[in-house]
Amino acid sequence: LKRVCVDMDEVMADTLAEHLRRYNQAFEEDVTVDDLAGKGLWEITPQDRQKELRAFLDAEDFFEDLPLMPDAQDVLKKLSTQFEIFIATQAMAVPNSLGPKYRWLQRHFPFIPPTHYVFCGDKRILRADYLIDDLPKNLLRFEGQGLLYTAPHNLTATGFVRVNNWQEVAEYFAAIPESS
Amino acid sequence: LKRVCVDMDEVMADTLAEHLRRYNQAFEEDVTVDDLAGKGLWEITPQDRQKELRAFLDAEDFFEDLPLMPDAQDVLKKLSTQFEIFIATQAMAVPNSLGPKYRWLQRHFPFIPPTHYVFCGDKRILRADYLIDDLPKNLLRFEGQGLLYTAPHNLTATGFVRVNNWQEVAEYFAAIPESS
Repeated sequence: LKRVCVDMDEVMADTLAEHLRRYNQAFEEDVTVDDLAGKGLWEITPQDRQKELRAFLDAEDFFEDLPLMPDAQDVLKKLSTQFEIFIATQAMAVPNSLGPKYRWLQRHFPFIPPTHYVFCGDKRILRADYLIDDLPKNLLRFEGQGLLYTAPHNLTATGFVRVNNWQEVAEYFAAIPESS
Repeated sequence: LKRVCVDMDEVMADTLAEHLRRYNQAFEEDVTVDDLAGKGLWEITPQDRQKELRAFLDAEDFFEDLPLMPDAQDVLKKLSTQFEIFIATQAMAVPNSLGPKYRWLQRHFPFIPPTHYVFCGDKRILRADYLIDDLPKNLLRFEGQGLLYTAPHNLTATGFVRVNNWQEVAEYFAAIPESS
């Protein structure tokens, strides 16, 4: 079976929605996804709020209850019958996320066994045929075929095979012969 | 740089010593490493204690304070100037170990950045040139060159390049040209 690595934040989980929610609540702002086109939340918020922006992520409960990306469950469930799925998430920059990420995966993706979770940093370490990720940096380091999962911060990135949602992920892999 | 993955339990950390200590204390036994020759603790202890054996590992504090393997720090520090070191540990079978393992690595191996920690299950996912591991199963799945780090449970395993201690690890890599 071909091996597919899937990133969590902003690919399986809508991490940005939760980050925006906490930011807007704390500062009584109304920043939306549309305000971000091509940028990260870090780039469009005042310098003196960067510490809080980071503190939201470090909170014990931030990664515990993230909303799901639409169709991620259904599409991954189908893909897991034809491909070997590994979850590969940058968890080491936020050590408090380790336990919550494990529990979130078990709750929402029970068909992927914990043996196939990879909590890592530098994604050059992954030996797989495909990587679905929202960070161009990760795809550039990966030795297999990368798929850039569209997120507000990567809208202007070029030179990648891009998937805009999980339906497009399904279509991409439907066109690949299983044995190839 | 060539990439070297290093397992934690029974390679960097003396996990077995702590497991034995808790077992002996709980059951007022005196099992030693010598009693294990060729076997795991699971195999030489009574069936009705398997649940407790597992519970020791699941305890929140089990992985917090494991003793270091002799020379692991010194040798890895030297190796890290000539090779790219990743820590690759089977953490997913004991989710309570995730946080403690992260903290243990930071405390004892501050020269290895968290970007180079890999908390995983199935080690087929690792893209590296070398893997130092005590489990024959992991080495068989790994696509690069495996080094079996001697532990009581693997004494009878054959067909592997074996290293008996960290001095032998140093000697093995000293014989490898950096650019090869």
